[in-house]
Amino acid sequence: MTSPKDRTRVRRLPEKAVTDRDALDALLAAALVAHVAVVDDGQPYVVPMACAPDRDRLLLHGSTGSRLMRLLAAGAPTCVTITLLDGLVYARSAFESSMNYRSAMILGSCTALDGDDALEGLRLLTAHLPPQRWDTLRAPLRKELAATSVLAMPLTEWSVKISDGPPDDDPRDLDAPVWAGVVPLSLQPGTPLDAPD
Amino acid sequence: MTSPKDRTRVRRLPEKAVTDRDALDALLAAALVAHVAVVDDGQPYVVPMACAPDRDRLLLHGSTGSRLMRLLAAGAPTCVTITLLDGLVYARSAFESSMNYRSAMILGSCTALDGDDALEGLRLLTAHLPPQRWDTLRAPLRKELAATSVLAMPLTEWSVKISDGPPDDDPRDLDAPVWAGVVPLSLQPGTPLDAPD
Repeated sequence: MTSPKDRTRVRRLPEKAVTDRDALDALLAAALVAHVAVVDDGQPYVVPMACAPDRDRLLLHGSTGSRLMRLLAAGAPTCVTITLLDGLVYARSAFESSMNYRSAMILGSCTALDGDDALEGLRLLTAHLPPQRWDTLRAPLRKELAATSVLAMPLTEWSVKISDGPPDDDPRDLDAPVWAGVVPLSLQPGTPLDAPD
Repeated sequence: MTSPKDRTRVRRLPEKAVTDRDALDALLAAALVAHVAVVDDGQPYVVPMACAPDRDRLLLHGSTGSRLMRLLAAGAPTCVTITLLDGLVYARSAFESSMNYRSAMILGSCTALDGDDALEGLRLLTAHLPPQRWDTLRAPLRKELAATSVLAMPLTEWSVKISDGPPDDDPRDLDAPVWAGVVPLSLQPGTPLDAPD
């Protein structure tokens, strides 16, 4: 299937739209959290979920039993949006001040994995967080698997928007006596804290 | 109004629910991006928007003219979810491995600000990003204001969920020969890059 389709075509600031699959894959490789939407009785709900790419789908991890997870597992229409904030853009006007980011919007519906598929999905979700620990951890218990939902969202209908680079000031503002530039932002690890037990 | 209401009561892992307003305010003070949902023809869409708290409402900033912004400005039911990822929790089992985070879900509908309210909203959105630059930047032009949407989402129906602390391993796993603990994560600024112009 081709992508983006009409529903995911970027209409606002289309110069920021990126349509190659490599850009989507790079974003998904770097993302730890996705925002997943579902509609219940006309009201949208958005929940954060752990995510990991798996070829032509995105794996999502949540707790079994919640109302929203049940709707998602049943194939309700959803939107999965992933945003990485890459920097603050300080322009010479408030209007051009902005943020640098990479964002993907994926439309479709999820499938709930079960059995060996769910176990493999959990392995991939765990392996997505370095270091590789899956083989050093005991195998999940049956009751643990039963309490875990792994959803798969197909990567068929999606769009990616990337805002990067320096501020784009109006030429008439270039003499303004303020600093202009970008302060990069990235999610950085701190000092590991040993578990007290 | 009281909060959380029934729609936003945290049912999954309710021990992670936090109901005091201070927790919401602290989260909103630290957040730069909100994920905002709207439903169009049964399909949910989630877009990232810049956000800033303003007393009993959350300001959201986007571009005028997009279909989703028009729906939001018209008061369509929405959900604004804000998530800060605070750490990776390495437990002694895959099942207990998780993430530390703070997340708020706000339900309701937005109001579009105009005139002086929109200008004040833009000021607050700009001031939310340190350093304070609003007074050193020229005033927005009329056409710039016309091209900017500032939405306000009331903080009346919301829930906050906080996952923090060390891994919560099953006592039977405590002897497993793997490291357990938390790797804190935070969004950190890098070296500022001067605008080339």
